[in-house]
Amino acid sequence: MATVQTPPSDTTTSGWHSRPDSELDPATLERIDKWWRAANYLSVGQIYLIANPLLRTPLTRDDVKPRLLGHWGTTPGLNFLYAHMNRAIAERSLSTVYITGPGHGGPGLVANSYLEGTYSDTYTHITQDEEGLQRLFKQFSFPGGIPSHVAPETPGSIHEGGELGYALSHAYGAAFDNPDLLLFTVVGDGEAETGPLATSWHSNKFLNPATDGVVLPVLHLNGYKIANPTVLARISDDELHSLMKGYGHKPHEFVAGFDDEDFASIHGRFAALLDEVLDEIVAIKERAAAGDETRPEWPMIIFRTPKGWTCPAYIDGKKAQDSWRAHQVPLASARDTPEHLQVLADWLQSYKAEELFDENGVLDEDIAALAPAGELRMSANPHANGGLLTKDLRLPDFRDFAVPVPVPGSGIHENTKVLGEWLREVVRLNPDNFRIFGPDETASNRLQNVFEVTKKVWNADYHEGDTDDLLALRGRVVEMLSEHQCQGWLEGYLLTGRHGLFSCYEAFIHIIDAMFNQHAKWLKVTSDIPWRRPIPSLNYLLSSHVWRQDHNGFSHQDPGFIDHVVNKKPEVVRVYLPADANTLLSTYDHCLRSRDYVNVVVAGKQPAPQFLTMDQAIAHCTRGLGIWEWAGSEVDGERPDVVLGCAGDVPTLEVLAAADLLRKNIPDLKIRVVNVVDLMRLMDDTEHPHGLNHRDFDAVFGTDVPVIFAYHGYPWLIHRLTYRRTTHANIHVRGYKEEGTTTTPFDMVMLNDLDRFKLVIDVIDRVPGLADRHAALRQRMEDKRIEARAYTRTHGEDLPEVSQWVWPDAQDQSDSSAVDATVATGGDNE
Amino acid sequence: MATVQTPPSDTTTSGWHSRPDSELDPATLERIDKWWRAANYLSVGQIYLIANPLLRTPLTRDDVKPRLLGHWGTTPGLNFLYAHMNRAIAERSLSTVYITGPGHGGPGLVANSYLEGTYSDTYTHITQDEEGLQRLFKQFSFPGGIPSHVAPETPGSIHEGGELGYALSHAYGAAFDNPDLLLFTVVGDGEAETGPLATSWHSNKFLNPATDGVVLPVLHLNGYKIANPTVLARISDDELHSLMKGYGHKPHEFVAGFDDEDFASIHGRFAALLDEVLDEIVAIKERAAAGDETRPEWPMIIFRTPKGWTCPAYIDGKKAQDSWRAHQVPLASARDTPEHLQVLADWLQSYKAEELFDENGVLDEDIAALAPAGELRMSANPHANGGLLTKDLRLPDFRDFAVPVPVPGSGIHENTKVLGEWLREVVRLNPDNFRIFGPDETASNRLQNVFEVTKKVWNADYHEGDTDDLLALRGRVVEMLSEHQCQGWLEGYLLTGRHGLFSCYEAFIHIIDAMFNQHAKWLKVTSDIPWRRPIPSLNYLLSSHVWRQDHNGFSHQDPGFIDHVVNKKPEVVRVYLPADANTLLSTYDHCLRSRDYVNVVVAGKQPAPQFLTMDQAIAHCTRGLGIWEWAGSEVDGERPDVVLGCAGDVPTLEVLAAADLLRKNIPDLKIRVVNVVDLMRLMDDTEHPHGLNHRDFDAVFGTDVPVIFAYHGYPWLIHRLTYRRTTHANIHVRGYKEEGTTTTPFDMVMLNDLDRFKLVIDVIDRVPGLADRHAALRQRMEDKRIEARAYTRTHGEDLPEVSQWVWPDAQDQSDSSAVDATVATGGDNE
Repeated sequence: MATVQTPPSDTTTSGWHSRPDSELDPATLERIDKWWRAANYLSVGQIYLIANPLLRTPLTRDDVKPRLLGHWGTTPGLNFLYAHMNRAIAERSLSTVYITGPGHGGPGLVANSYLEGTYSDTYTHITQDEEGLQRLFKQFSFPGGIPSHVAPETPGSIHEGGELGYALSHAYGAAFDNPDLLLFTVVGDGEAETGPLATSWHSNKFLNPATDGVVLPVLHLNGYKIANPTVLARISDDELHSLMKGYGHKPHEFVAGFDDEDFASIHGRFAALLDEVLDEIVAIKERAAAGDETRPEWPMIIFRTPKGWTCPAYIDGKKAQDSWRAHQVPLASARDTPEHLQVLADWLQSYKAEELFDENGVLDEDIAALAPAGELRMSANPHANGGLLTKDLRLPDFRDFAVPVPVPGSGIHENTKVLGEWLREVVRLNPDNFRIFGPDETASNRLQNVFEVTKKVWNADYHEGDTDDLLALRGRVVEMLSEHQCQGWLEGYLLTGRHGLFSCYEAFIHIIDAMFNQHAKWLKVTSDIPWRRPIPSLNYLLSSHVWRQDHNGFSHQDPGFIDHVVNKKPEVVRVYLPADANTLLSTYDHCLRSRDYVNVVVAGKQPAPQFLTMDQAIAHCTRGLGIWEWAGSEVDGERPDVVLGCAGDVPTLEVLAAADLLRKNIPDLKIRVVNVVDLMRLMDDTEHPHGLNHRDFDAVFGTDVPVIFAYHGYPWLIHRLTYRRTTHANIHVRGYKEEGTTTTPFDMVMLNDLDRFKLVIDVIDRVPGLADRHAALRQRMEDKRIEARAYTRTHGEDLPEVSQWVWPDAQDQSDSSAVDATVATGGDNE
Repeated sequence: MATVQTPPSDTTTSGWHSRPDSELDPATLERIDKWWRAANYLSVGQIYLIANPLLRTPLTRDDVKPRLLGHWGTTPGLNFLYAHMNRAIAERSLSTVYITGPGHGGPGLVANSYLEGTYSDTYTHITQDEEGLQRLFKQFSFPGGIPSHVAPETPGSIHEGGELGYALSHAYGAAFDNPDLLLFTVVGDGEAETGPLATSWHSNKFLNPATDGVVLPVLHLNGYKIANPTVLARISDDELHSLMKGYGHKPHEFVAGFDDEDFASIHGRFAALLDEVLDEIVAIKERAAAGDETRPEWPMIIFRTPKGWTCPAYIDGKKAQDSWRAHQVPLASARDTPEHLQVLADWLQSYKAEELFDENGVLDEDIAALAPAGELRMSANPHANGGLLTKDLRLPDFRDFAVPVPVPGSGIHENTKVLGEWLREVVRLNPDNFRIFGPDETASNRLQNVFEVTKKVWNADYHEGDTDDLLALRGRVVEMLSEHQCQGWLEGYLLTGRHGLFSCYEAFIHIIDAMFNQHAKWLKVTSDIPWRRPIPSLNYLLSSHVWRQDHNGFSHQDPGFIDHVVNKKPEVVRVYLPADANTLLSTYDHCLRSRDYVNVVVAGKQPAPQFLTMDQAIAHCTRGLGIWEWAGSEVDGERPDVVLGCAGDVPTLEVLAAADLLRKNIPDLKIRVVNVVDLMRLMDDTEHPHGLNHRDFDAVFGTDVPVIFAYHGYPWLIHRLTYRRTTHANIHVRGYKEEGTTTTPFDMVMLNDLDRFKLVIDVIDRVPGLADRHAALRQRMEDKRIEARAYTRTHGEDLPEVSQWVWPDAQDQSDSSAVDATVATGGDNE
């Protein structure tokens, strides 16, 4: 069904050229009009027709689809803009990706791709003839066919039409480090009301006009949503222009379609406006090339045209065109009466398909000539199939960044800071295809070492003094206080074939739950589309996690992003909980090499003990989970009495402290400690590609041994992941319980019953025979909890015996446990 | 520890008055300055001091907290504004709520509340003396104390300092239908970068100046975030003013603190500016009262002052004040060296506490006189403890809106449309304390009947013709294409004691996952605060759900909001899945009467069969789940062979169709059908207040009978909720599996293996003894699935025997099964 595109031989197909110095001739304007009519005809055909695509016979009820789905309202505007851009691209050799903010205008983008030939190249059964047209029409929003939105299936698209609000974020993400690329970005006036879109206009403060591409926003002001006018269409011109100027843009307004101006005049006016705007862009590019990289006043277009332009003006006496009634299917009753069927027939015939397609259904050659050639066709731009252009990252050997761990528990490091040292080298080695995005938290998350080799890109005003030291007109780190922007930019960057990561507080990552959904689904769908080449994975680094409340209080803590992620298709999601720095390094190296996944890595930034040497860490990460023999007290060949499982850095620390207490107080207890770094290993191998088979799982966790499992997130997930395991009923999980208020680190784990003392109590309660023999120990543990809590209430710090506890083997090494921390006091910044 | 506030005797404490016609005297300005210094002193004290609150002895290391947490940067600005508002409120008797967008400035709001006396009234152990000061300081961000953010514990707050971006949405929600209330709303320039905040400026298009209150936004432009400058502080004045004008505001800029202007002059300038702005508001109110309710140009203030104003200018040679270093704790090293300790001592002494507090630590009387009296104190405004003002809704008897169900399965109705008829009367009976919020989907979700008695509020331009028929300057329905805005407005409306619901497509509700988190946690915390009175519940109506993809394709479908909700404290969350219209009516009546919950109701809008009479529906909703005896084939007193469970309208339909097939094909099979409307009933009663005890659960689901459970959402949740049930291992769940592309309704359920044929196969496979005897039936079911799929691929519709299936008892009633649907064709609008 689909063919594989070959990689482009030359990706630098364009520069920034003024148009040839010639008048726009009437023939060109007519060609534009005919292209537009053809695209409109194909769009209406997709929405309505199941047969008779060229209306060779009078339209009958049976030619009309039984279920009418799709969105006409935005489509003619999208088609108009597409036709005009084709003229401009061909004249200027301008490499352009068309971002369709009103992505529900799917029929339009499919129509243009078909007119350009790309659709038939990609889907060879959709031929350039009558039969192909019939298939093109039928498949649209039809069972087994294509979605009504712009989708991964649509050639030339990197922006799914679904949830609205991310068009400009995606466009800017695609523009970063693509200096020769134009992102022609249509913003719907509906989506313009969303929060993410409203702030994304400010993306221009993070763009470098010399080293990045250009985003040309077109605010598609057609005035209506599903059932309401749009806000921006109903404020004064003065307010609207002020708003755009306030966003840093020079607005150019175009109004058409509300009177009887003929189309030749309309096309002439828009072509001239488009040339003016593109010439402004060329001038900005020239100034930047000459050394002025400061933020220019970027042009944008306000494109005010009627909703549903060219559809019937009135249907049944009610306004259709230029009203919200044109949003979706303006004539839903086409099959209901002969009169309504005639309305549809007249509408279709108004485009005069006979002037556009020959008797075989092939597009007229002269019209087809409007499109640029090859990869200059927007539907064939290789940047919109980013995997074609992806180059592997040059990754420094992460082993070189290992922290020494002479014995387990020795050395205190901030895990993310160690990662930051490695990331510094990743940045250095990949100066134009790797970026770190974050909402003002890169340093707070302890990745500050990257600033030894790069800066935060900032293209707004600078102040004198030392406050702006880390800012620059060019940089690899992009920070704005909007998780939506960070996610959207990164998605745009990845979808065009580059690499990056999003560093975020765990507390705030739920803000982009819905965006993650759409990206994960995009990856899932593209995995079944052969011509879509794999793209770099979307990597999260969630630090400032829920176990260190500090500044980030109970009001907004939630470890549930992992649960949200795990609801998606196993093929595309991975979750890692490295417990120390070497494990984190090994994990992140793996993530940055991977393709087509979403990798969620949760790692603490606070000073913490280290457990595995680099060799051990690599082996552990390769297995994904494993027995830490040094921490347990098993006897070779004998069944352990209890398994202490852990996943996450804080839970691991508490489990080790509990193991220490148990070994000292119940020396004959045979303890096994199991640490999990790759959470998906807990699933079985029929459910997730990383799943462990039952035999191996049973060998690690046993089949009839009590398992006390300390987990970073909501305990339920562990039950869910291990549901099919033999030992499932023996697993008792301690995790995050939605408790907590102003507190200290150990008080926090106590509030959630995940502390070492409680874990010891759990073991006593659950291992047969211990309760009677060790009632005194159990009582001592209860007392310790009370003592620990009381201590914090008086001193504001944790009991020294808790906060200074180290694994016994490391006690001799205590001189090496000095805190390697730039910020040892305080907690999360926020 | 806390006392209960008494309800106010008079809530209309204010009007809109110009200030008395007198000059601002120097004594007033000095009083303002002293209040500001006092608030600043108390703020620094909270962040740093554990003892010695009045510095009676030289500051020692032991007086300083061991862990320094909190945010100084925004606090002095918040305090400055608070002091000035106190003067204006007292002069004008202006009922005002202070919304603290930079909510991490908690010490400031606590300090002002303490200075006003409210804090000591509310928390009697925090006395107005030295001991009280010491407790006030120690408790801040200290184990067992209060959060560092503005929080439910803070008197006068309805806006938690946590995740940023919702200050203006909350303010406008509070302003709706509170014509005499001023929402003085400080917007941080950090939060101003978030998407939700960026679009929330447009809220003024949904405000009526006569019948709603006033939001006065103050953009607190202190220039820095955690580690970066803010965007809005680094664009030109021209751009910033244009932006505010574009948002529909008249900007007033105030700049202070960057030179050596004395404070008397600064206070004089700001007081004059504030009077000018408040007079503009009074003029707008007067015009509105005279009949001009069109949108005015609302004033706003750009308040440009240094970050961390009044803290040391430089620390260790690095810029502190007016830099990002002042964001949190500017002097983190106060305990580290004597020199740094001295810096702190000097800083504290700069406020000259001895001029502000007497020897007992009591605030000077003259300073205290700046505050207004009683409920005019912003920390004591009853609107900020909305439960004090809540009036019960007048609810029409929902029984009067019942659809007739002569036999189960008869009648076809759009469930949400029936609800809409009842909601119409709710709107009619409650003209000033009930609103419906939605992102342009009220009609699409079939609640259009409400427009018989109200309109959508719209205060922007109107067009001639019929497109604006449902808009008006006043209305009970508020629609903007921003789920963030809908959620934020509704939260503000509820927190100030009114009622409402949020109608949203299920596909898009994840957009507000993080906002739900904060509100649910607010409710959880307030349930432990005696002086916080219960507020109306937050009610969701999720329609256009995942089982009817139609326009809303696979790209963004996800039923996981329920999973997200269930992760929160059981005390505050409720999830309902009514299967028909009468059940939905009964459910929603219950929700609108409830307090302090989040109620999630998922209900379809497509024409669907009806099952329960109103009496049956009420009994069913009261039980929360129950056996539908008419649907099963049990024999009294005998164990059923299989239980068919269902939750959700589409799963219920498929289960009934499967039961029909089974009863016809395996007449001796003893089937029990159980429908669940209150999902929390599946949990046990020790885990959730709605949970069913084990005996009752076992009586319904059995202990050893195979249970095939068809569920609306991700199947895992049913396993989780029933995890502790005896029969858990017998439960086999069919639910949403993340499959689906362009499809028909039945094809959708087939893609997810939730269809009737698959359920029959499940029964044959899982009930002992059926597999051999009914191999032919099983094969027929497999064949039916293939046939059904093939049919959709050809016809674009479902197999008539599927789409036209009705429950057998209803077949005789087929004349009553006419579709009561205004929009029978098409599917979801979007």
